[in-house]
Amino acid sequence: MRYMGLLQTYKPYLPVNDNTPLLTLQEGNTPLVRAENLSNELDLDIYFKYEGLNPTGSFKDRGMVMAVAKAMEEGSRTIMCASTGNTSAAAAAYAARGGLNCIVLIPNNNIALGKLAQAMIYGAKVIAIEGNFDRALEIVREITAKHPITLVNSVNPFRIEGQKTAAFEVCDQLGKAPDYLAIPVGNAGNITAYWKGFKEYYENGKSKSLPKMIGFEAEGSAAIVRGEPIPNPETIATAIRIGNPATWKGAEAAAKDSGGQINFVTDEQILHAYKTIAAREGIFAEPASAASIAGVMKLKSEGYFEKGQSVVCVLTGHGLKDPNIAIKSVSAEPMVVQDSEAAVMEAIRKLEG
Amino acid sequence: MRYMGLLQTYKPYLPVNDNTPLLTLQEGNTPLVRAENLSNELDLDIYFKYEGLNPTGSFKDRGMVMAVAKAMEEGSRTIMCASTGNTSAAAAAYAARGGLNCIVLIPNNNIALGKLAQAMIYGAKVIAIEGNFDRALEIVREITAKHPITLVNSVNPFRIEGQKTAAFEVCDQLGKAPDYLAIPVGNAGNITAYWKGFKEYYENGKSKSLPKMIGFEAEGSAAIVRGEPIPNPETIATAIRIGNPATWKGAEAAAKDSGGQINFVTDEQILHAYKTIAAREGIFAEPASAASIAGVMKLKSEGYFEKGQSVVCVLTGHGLKDPNIAIKSVSAEPMVVQDSEAAVMEAIRKLEG
Repeated sequence: MRYMGLLQTYKPYLPVNDNTPLLTLQEGNTPLVRAENLSNELDLDIYFKYEGLNPTGSFKDRGMVMAVAKAMEEGSRTIMCASTGNTSAAAAAYAARGGLNCIVLIPNNNIALGKLAQAMIYGAKVIAIEGNFDRALEIVREITAKHPITLVNSVNPFRIEGQKTAAFEVCDQLGKAPDYLAIPVGNAGNITAYWKGFKEYYENGKSKSLPKMIGFEAEGSAAIVRGEPIPNPETIATAIRIGNPATWKGAEAAAKDSGGQINFVTDEQILHAYKTIAAREGIFAEPASAASIAGVMKLKSEGYFEKGQSVVCVLTGHGLKDPNIAIKSVSAEPMVVQDSEAAVMEAIRKLEG
Repeated sequence: MRYMGLLQTYKPYLPVNDNTPLLTLQEGNTPLVRAENLSNELDLDIYFKYEGLNPTGSFKDRGMVMAVAKAMEEGSRTIMCASTGNTSAAAAAYAARGGLNCIVLIPNNNIALGKLAQAMIYGAKVIAIEGNFDRALEIVREITAKHPITLVNSVNPFRIEGQKTAAFEVCDQLGKAPDYLAIPVGNAGNITAYWKGFKEYYENGKSKSLPKMIGFEAEGSAAIVRGEPIPNPETIATAIRIGNPATWKGAEAAAKDSGGQINFVTDEQILHAYKTIAAREGIFAEPASAASIAGVMKLKSEGYFEKGQSVVCVLTGHGLKDPNIAIKSVSAEPMVVQDSEAAVMEAIRKLEG
């Protein structure tokens, strides 16, 4: 049987009607991989929801397919967002798929072509303004309010509708809701979406319990934990480097209503987790993704869990999204030896310790 | 239902016995996406088998999970390969997953840390020799013949066993074998594996026909088409830049026995196809992958197909694997304008033409 994408698979739970095109790049249907080594080590039953295997390499595809399908339904010919990262790549890919134009607005300081190249390959038109990111988002909102151009930043409510399908998949794959859902928190839309999804599945009798939602901000951008916006957020986990989360209240409600919490992890803890899941479990995720497992390690050390409880850690994006961090993180240059069997065997013995 | 990976899913067709660990990162189960726009344009029924959504970002995971599982079954503690690209990333990931050591041997000329970083993040130990790639492979063969270290380069026969599962998936997803299977040809193991898979499914009554296999080399490394090895192969499609394919005879047999052909495409045709599938279909694949659809475009222009025939194009790796080509391929720097609604709207109108 061919998987037909999110809109088809979860139609009854989504704002999909007869006029909604069933747009798809076969987003979703991502692996739920058991963390064999870390489960043993931490006395928990840990799984990774590996969202990096969505078509553009991040979970953003789930919300974007819904937002772009609705834009098409409404007759829009152009979508627009302010973004320098995963959002612009997802927007551009689905615009290409649906035959729409995609405009990406960015601030003119520090244009990193590497991060934008993916959106541009998908055909997005990029405009840089002489102003900062907040000003870019403001202009996007002004323009999309007046012109027949659809805003696809996270304030578009269809984004959360699409994203909640990840919670459905977790329940379907695990055969139940987990005890905990651990998730990185940046703009806070994703934790809000997962919580909405878990509740809807529960209310429809598709799962018998609800998970406790545990969300993790990076220390340098932990606005929700500190209780105030952070003007100049700083963290190596760029995908969650957000000082004033758009869905702040949704994240707080998810944590409170589920009996979970919003906590934070340091960059050091994030990098440690990032390297650990690659080297111990064979899973390469972008640094921000590792905030979920870093948070689980932190709470475990504080005696938070009971033995054997199930924890699903959301890994939001693929490690290939941020090759520079990977290059910086590898310990050393390769060892160079002569081209003889003996020399190479000696090197192997040294490396094996 | 949770997908349990290739070894579990296709157990009856694989060398899996009671002692074979069911190792998995949930490789396989990759999308078969219909090329809506190109199908219309070329009067064909075209699909992409999007292998870039395997865990490490390429089809190599299929063969590697089988090879590493067999290495574990045989009690090996270390695997080894000569590779600077996708093979080393896949080897390192499955070694990490299985708790084995992974040694990657490379030539010391032009070490591109960007390409090696993924393998190193997964914990591979990299050794560079004062010699070329052929010499590296020679040393790997010498060492693995004498020591309890398993060779996982493509000469490991389990690689093709794992890779053939992609043909099973194509049949399962399409509900039949396609009329044509279009595939990039580098080392020629993949076309050999697909053909083996299609034949086995056919012989077991799982499909009612066999596809014609059409394989495409890059012009600058088209050894099979020219009928002789190419000492210094050159193409931007680095994943198929191979002048003396290891599975040369397998590729020729697949083409001949199926009534297909091995042909070639130019770098220009590859780059055109690479950009076209991103901008028209929303699918970002590495340049070598685009050789399959570039080949279909070439043969179509020569009157090769009949109207409406089904063609599955294998896209072997994710576009994020080669970010530099993406950056080079995007046409221009972003347009820079003032931070006003009017200035941005003017820019949008210009970009929309």
